[in-house]
Amino acid sequence: MSPHAPIEYRDAPARVRAVFDDIKRTRQVEDVNNFWKYLAHDPATLKRTWASLKAIMAPGALDALTKEMIYLAVSVTNGCGYCIASHSAAARKAGMDEAMFGELMAVVGMANETNRLANGYRVPIDPAFER
Amino acid sequence: MSPHAPIEYRDAPARVRAVFDDIKRTRQVEDVNNFWKYLAHDPATLKRTWASLKAIMAPGALDALTKEMIYLAVSVTNGCGYCIASHSAAARKAGMDEAMFGELMAVVGMANETNRLANGYRVPIDPAFER
Amino acid sequence: MSPHAPIEYRDAPARVRAVFDDIKRTRQVEDVNNFWKYLAHDPATLKRTWASLKAIMAPGALDALTKEMIYLAVSVTNGCGYCIASHSAAARKAGMDEAMFGELMAVVGMANETNRLANGYRVPIDPAFER
Amino acid sequence: MSPHAPIEYRDAPARVRAVFDDIKRTRQVEDVNNFWKYLAHDPATLKRTWASLKAIMAPGALDALTKEMIYLAVSVTNGCGYCIASHSAAARKAGMDEAMFGELMAVVGMANETNRLANGYRVPIDPAFER
Amino acid sequence: MSPHAPIEYRDAPARVRAVFDDIKRTRQVEDVNNFWKYLAHDPATLKRTWASLKAIMAPGALDALTKEMIYLAVSVTNGCGYCIASHSAAARKAGMDEAMFGELMAVVGMANETNRLANGYRVPIDPAFER
Amino acid sequence: MSPHAPIEYRDAPARVRAVFDDIKRTRQVEDVNNFWKYLAHDPATLKRTWASLKAIMAPGALDALTKEMIYLAVSVTNGCGYCIASHSAAARKAGMDEAMFGELMAVVGMANETNRLANGYRVPIDPAFER
Repeated sequence: MSPHAPIEYRDAPARVRAVFDDIKRTRQVEDVNNFWKYLAHDPATLKRTWASLKAIMAPGALDALTKEMIYLAVSVTNGCGYCIASHSAAARKAGMDEAMFGELMAVVGMANETNRLANGYRVPIDPAFER
Repeated sequence: MSPHAPIEYRDAPARVRAVFDDIKRTRQVEDVNNFWKYLAHDPATLKRTWASLKAIMAPGALDALTKEMIYLAVSVTNGCGYCIASHSAAARKAGMDEAMFGELMAVVGMANETNRLANGYRVPIDPAFER
Repeated sequence: MSPHAPIEYRDAPARVRAVFDDIKRTRQVEDVNNFWKYLAHDPATLKRTWASLKAIMAPGALDALTKEMIYLAVSVTNGCGYCIASHSAAARKAGMDEAMFGELMAVVGMANETNRLANGYRVPIDPAFER
Repeated sequence: MSPHAPIEYRDAPARVRAVFDDIKRTRQVEDVNNFWKYLAHDPATLKRTWASLKAIMAPGALDALTKEMIYLAVSVTNGCGYCIASHSAAARKAGMDEAMFGELMAVVGMANETNRLANGYRVPIDPAFER
Repeated sequence: MSPHAPIEYRDAPARVRAVFDDIKRTRQVEDVNNFWKYLAHDPATLKRTWASLKAIMAPGALDALTKEMIYLAVSVTNGCGYCIASHSAAARKAGMDEAMFGELMAVVGMANETNRLANGYRVPIDPAFER
Repeated sequence: MSPHAPIEYRDAPARVRAVFDDIKRTRQVEDVNNFWKYLAHDPATLKRTWASLKAIMAPGALDALTKEMIYLAVSVTNGCGYCIASHSAAARKAGMDEAMFGELMAVVGMANETNRLANGYRVPIDPAFER
């Protein structure tokens, strides 16, 4: 089977279905998104990735919305088209409105700019910031 | 003057001092950190960068802590050593405790991992995520 | 001629044809892929790039399959869509099966994750690893 | 406790010691390297990261050496200083000699070059490479 | 209004129109390109970004063409598809011909290659290059 | 011999010396910089890299200074410390003064910022920019 085709629930082996079922139950959705259908080509990676994501993205010291916005900030920095689309949707679902998205993007843009200014000017770390 | 030496307040021209003064007043600090002392080699960039940063990082739809954590997430993704040091300090000052830092790092790590899984499996964007 | 159109063999000048011929002969293919047809807009870069690629990708201390997988790992990390498509195909042709692709992707994902954890926690290099 | 200090075995809580013990046993080393001592500030991330790494890096369809070289290729592409140092050491331990390292680096350099040539020339994916 | 739809002049509020008018006047174009129509969802970011871009890209110590080529080099390195398309067009408009584009791309490719060779070989900075 | 030690001229084999000699002659310097002394661990990569660099960086449609500034822009974007140091020096030697460096850095920062804004707002390419 080509890795470049999604594996649908009806065609999935039991251990893949078990992960799909848990994603659907946890997220209260009727079907999993493409990311999981492609990862299903490697059931071990599918299972491990979902288990990690589920644990990491659960509300804790940071709430779910903050975590989704951080996820989106990384995806935008890396230029991952799929991830930007899916985590924009996830962040909106978790409560990100237009004003929040606008400020998030402004911070991401600014950080990418000043990261390079710091690189180019070869700025040494202030003793106050050092461990 | 070499661009690889910080410009101290006592040696700075008036337009640089004006920016330094505003940074110190806004942040309630006694001196500006190295980033600004190096950027001072180009007063126009210094002034513009501080004006943008001041506007972008002010609390709005997102609070100051969330903004600092997003800034840190980008800096960690890009591997900017200076920025990681300075924005770790800024985020802590804004209220980030150890548990929050740990969860932030876990999300950043996970996003960087799944960004590449999405790239490598060439996952097409779900119609539900499309504009 | 626009740089945004492929240069086909029939339209190519002699020095471009010479490179195309060598690619076809070396790879035992009937036509070169788009990368070379676009690079043909700059015959000097075309010639130099093919000469380097041919030398570097030839089996040596590392076999051809290992080299293609490393190439793919870099392309996935950088998010280069064309390169992921072409080097996935090349790696499969060189013998990468589904299980190997799955493990390759898992390593690439993990490395991208831990690279950021090391950045964010500002881990100093162990003396044992130092030159 | 500062996140910018390593947590040594003698100071570690039981659940951190359990992970350190497993790392030492699996790798047959007397002490864990700094990466784990810093990650120990977040025991949940420490445990999850080690469990993932142990599973992913175990020989399977790809041998341990190939996996370490892929890890190194990603780390070099991302410019992660700590990761380059630690995975160079790990790859050498797994059998990478000078000639293999040289060829690995040549492939990594070439891939990073052609990734940008493909970007800049806006090369469309050949139908033959498409899913 | 969705952030994933362009805001056209006729639908734009006054403060967005003011920026659009200045872009059109400065660039002598009949309409602004998509980048600005999307950024218009956040008028503050639109205004700040245009003001910065206008100041930075104006001829100064470096001419407009050199600045556009540097912009393109960064965009190609980051793999930003939109930016590569728009700044290729801008650089051509500013005078970049085929030969210049070819040499620009060759330098960008080479720099991306040697950046990784320097990383992987862990080359220490020569004292002569140090501040 | 460790790859983490420079190979000096007196210890180099003939084919490495031949490259070192050509670098010194071409650049009119008394010794080669560390990059070449480390690459000398792999004479084939040393020879190929120098031959490519010499050809690419020679004045052509673009002058030497413009090429060095593009090289620096890429190195700053990638955050390669060695490359930033060495190509800052090379660009200064080729004529880059403080004002030019300041404008170069401003463009690099701006491009890195807008690359992410274009990513995050998912801006589609204008038909006018399409091939």
